Amino acid sequence: MSTVIANMSMSLDGFIEDRTGDVGRHLFGWTQRGTARSTMPGDGREFRTSAASARYLQEALTSLGALISGRGLFDVAGGWGGRHPAGVPVFVVTHQIPTDWPYADVPFTFVTEGVAAAVEQAKASAGAKTVAVASADIARQCLELGLLDAIAVDLVPVLLGAGKPWFAGLADVVELADPVITAGDGVTHLVYRVER
Amino acid sequence: MSTVIANMSMSLDGFIEDRTGDVGRHLFGWTQRGTARSTMPGDGREFRTSAASARYLQEALTSLGALISGRGLFDVAGGWGGRHPAGVPVFVVTHQIPTDWPYADVPFTFVTEGVAAAVEQAKASAGAKTVAVASADIARQCLELGLLDAIAVDLVPVLLGAGKPWFAGLADVVELADPVITAGDGVTHLVYRVER
Repeated sequence: MSTVIANMSMSLDGFIEDRTGDVGRHLFGWTQRGTARSTMPGDGREFRTSAASARYLQEALTSLGALISGRGLFDVAGGWGGRHPAGVPVFVVTHQIPTDWPYADVPFTFVTEGVAAAVEQAKASAGAKTVAVASADIARQCLELGLLDAIAVDLVPVLLGAGKPWFAGLADVVELADPVITAGDGVTHLVYRVER
Repeated sequence: MSTVIANMSMSLDGFIEDRTGDVGRHLFGWTQRGTARSTMPGDGREFRTSAASARYLQEALTSLGALISGRGLFDVAGGWGGRHPAGVPVFVVTHQIPTDWPYADVPFTFVTEGVAAAVEQAKASAGAKTVAVASADIARQCLELGLLDAIAVDLVPVLLGAGKPWFAGLADVVELADPVITAGDGVTHLVYRVER
């Protein structure tokens, strides 16, 4: 059965964007500061990290079966030019299906029946592989619906002081199990199972 | 030279109090869920944790030389009955020295000249040992003044969704070094050096 995982690079004080709305400057430095290379199967982009982070990334990419995105992220990313860097099918939660979507290389599916329907379709597509939730707001909704199995935090050693918090507006407390820890360079990878 | 360390139990989403103002229920469970005992030298209170957390706590307690508290925490704690559990001198940052302070067992010093003066006096008292900053607001001020050397986070596997953030209102971004990691039971201890 497929596992649904939310993954984000986050500052130690819980932000996934800084106060200017920038996500890259402080939170993704770790993806380009080492010598071990990981290649995104979809677009050939390379991460250069510590060996430990490269092993972690490779395992996550190899086990990935499908991805869920919100419409906001999809639009900001320009639909990834029709092929997500991770090279897996993408399920986009949206109110309206775009009428001008010309791509069909790696399938994009537009789901108008809400988050739970998107999770169901993504899990069916992923089979035994994992489903990654790429949008913070969708991740929060999955948590509240009891549909999230794990949270993978790339914890970056920086305090941003202000910005966009990952799980802002979460309706209730969510207990997690102790994390599986991978110490990287400029990042600590923490994978938590959600307790239900 | 003494090292100044801020230490807090914090949820994964960056809160040190839950939305009701409670600090204990979700954030300090790890101090009473194991079989390895650590004794607070000041009041004999016992922590029961994993062996790894006990070693971590013991090392922190042994190396502790002085403590800085804000007046708010001091008042909430009732001045710890005149003797802080950690058994070290306490420097209380306050605008007004209390007139009815009857205790003199382990010295409490009331500092009215501000945070920097409290840090200076605490470091002089601690000698080669560490100075711990016990109040979130004082820790933030120390960070902004460039007086904080390290941040020790007891990261608890829970999402609180709302509450009091540790470094709320921090004026600027603060870069940290990768942490020293101790994996506990119900907690991950992360000690970050502040980059200056």
